[in-house]
Amino acid sequence: MNFADRLIQKIKATSPICVGLDPRFEQIPQHIRDDAPTPGAAIFDFNKGIIDAVHDLVPAVKPQLAFYEMFGLDGLAALSRTIQYAKEKGLIVIADGKRNDIGTSAEAYAHAYLDEVGDFAVDALTVSPYLGYDGVKPFLENCKKHDKGIFILVKTSNKSSGDLQDREVEAEKLKVFELMGHYVESWGQDLIGKEGYSSVGAVVGATFPEEAKKLREIMPNTIFLVPGYGAQGAGAMDVKHCFKADGTGALVNNSRGILYAYEHMKQFAPEQYDQAARAAVLEMKKDLASLHE
Amino acid sequence: MNFADRLIQKIKATSPICVGLDPRFEQIPQHIRDDAPTPGAAIFDFNKGIIDAVHDLVPAVKPQLAFYEMFGLDGLAALSRTIQYAKEKGLIVIADGKRNDIGTSAEAYAHAYLDEVGDFAVDALTVSPYLGYDGVKPFLENCKKHDKGIFILVKTSNKSSGDLQDREVEAEKLKVFELMGHYVESWGQDLIGKEGYSSVGAVVGATFPEEAKKLREIMPNTIFLVPGYGAQGAGAMDVKHCFKADGTGALVNNSRGILYAYEHMKQFAPEQYDQAARAAVLEMKKDLASLHE
Repeated sequence: MNFADRLIQKIKATSPICVGLDPRFEQIPQHIRDDAPTPGAAIFDFNKGIIDAVHDLVPAVKPQLAFYEMFGLDGLAALSRTIQYAKEKGLIVIADGKRNDIGTSAEAYAHAYLDEVGDFAVDALTVSPYLGYDGVKPFLENCKKHDKGIFILVKTSNKSSGDLQDREVEAEKLKVFELMGHYVESWGQDLIGKEGYSSVGAVVGATFPEEAKKLREIMPNTIFLVPGYGAQGAGAMDVKHCFKADGTGALVNNSRGILYAYEHMKQFAPEQYDQAARAAVLEMKKDLASLHE
Repeated sequence: MNFADRLIQKIKATSPICVGLDPRFEQIPQHIRDDAPTPGAAIFDFNKGIIDAVHDLVPAVKPQLAFYEMFGLDGLAALSRTIQYAKEKGLIVIADGKRNDIGTSAEAYAHAYLDEVGDFAVDALTVSPYLGYDGVKPFLENCKKHDKGIFILVKTSNKSSGDLQDREVEAEKLKVFELMGHYVESWGQDLIGKEGYSSVGAVVGATFPEEAKKLREIMPNTIFLVPGYGAQGAGAMDVKHCFKADGTGALVNNSRGILYAYEHMKQFAPEQYDQAARAAVLEMKKDLASLHE
């Protein structure tokens, strides 16, 4: 089944919440770190607890590849085991790698993440667009062939995202992020499923609601993967415009606010980090549902 | 020693040639593939032969990470062994990962590639700039702390690089790649070494000589890492403007034209792929030297 259809249907059945698996090692509860033979083993044990606690509440998890790469081969073995385990639990896995290259190098990345099998085979990958269409096409081909998806950076959640993305382009009078929005919408036209969305999604930060509103108009067939909720300061009202009027079209990511909820929810001990994560997901689900009441 | 100083001095002592280690598996000579227990082992054996053959002629090698990631953990073990071996042979290693992220994720990538030790610890990393300064700052900090370098994509060598990079920005009347050139030059000001170059380099494709000429003026303290020579069609005249008048300031990459030289140089058997690579480097060195005669 088309990736966008799978994702939209799973969102409808659960919630529009993506759990960001960003294993900050020093925030993993001490008992897990003490019991694990390597950092990678601790990361996997921690992720497994989170996945067990939330897999029936959310459609997707998003491992941030940087946190695995920083532990070298041991960390990447943990990534591979995490991907495998999340899939076994029926979750859609989005690798947040922001990969980008051209020609055969981009093809190689597409093989790494968007083939049917492989240590890092996932459902979708985030892609950075500075290289233009040449840097996207090889990924599109794997999306078509294997029913996979990509999410292209359009308007990111960080403060200095405007350095480039908010520049106005001569003649078109569009800002760079709007130009990119038009590109992404057009690049996905061949990959629109029955639910009306394309397998070529966009990363649109929750921290810039006005920009998200514009992009929602430019990109009617595009699913938004929305970072910035929670730890980066955005709340439900900020992500409102990422959804369409019917309540579909966005997948809101939260990493720290779920993984390390135990640090702030005093009713949970560190050993109950998984239950704290579940409570945080339920709270976020309620917060987002309030938008469509 | 400052990364830029190390690189410039090594270029002066050898040549401005970077050997791109892009191990396209199907182009690795059959005898190596037959003898190796895994694809990763074949990739390492192949790379070792290339490194042994060229290490005294060039300052740097540039593994393209996509070709290792596509073979999963086995491929990444080959990457780690390749990095280690190239360093033992005294080569500067530039990881071509085009990584990009913000905040703690960018810090994690900086740890992965630009720390003193680690499975993937190299001398420099390529970085994609769509996220703006937030996506660069964490890398700069590691450059300062550990005398490492980065190369930021400015004008890439691919056909559709103009989709975004050639757009003219309102008011400044600069194209996006020129705007990015100004940013990169300024981001490197704290990291200029004795040779007059900064540890914050720029990727500037050989396939757009006029744009390179403009960038050379905008960026007097920036080393250009230049892809596109050879297989992508550019020759010495095309890369001319990437160098300053004194012949310094550029490192020209060639991957396929060196690694698989044996396929085109009929005087070499596949078993002599390493000697063919050496002959190709010597030829390229002569070609580039002709620019400054």
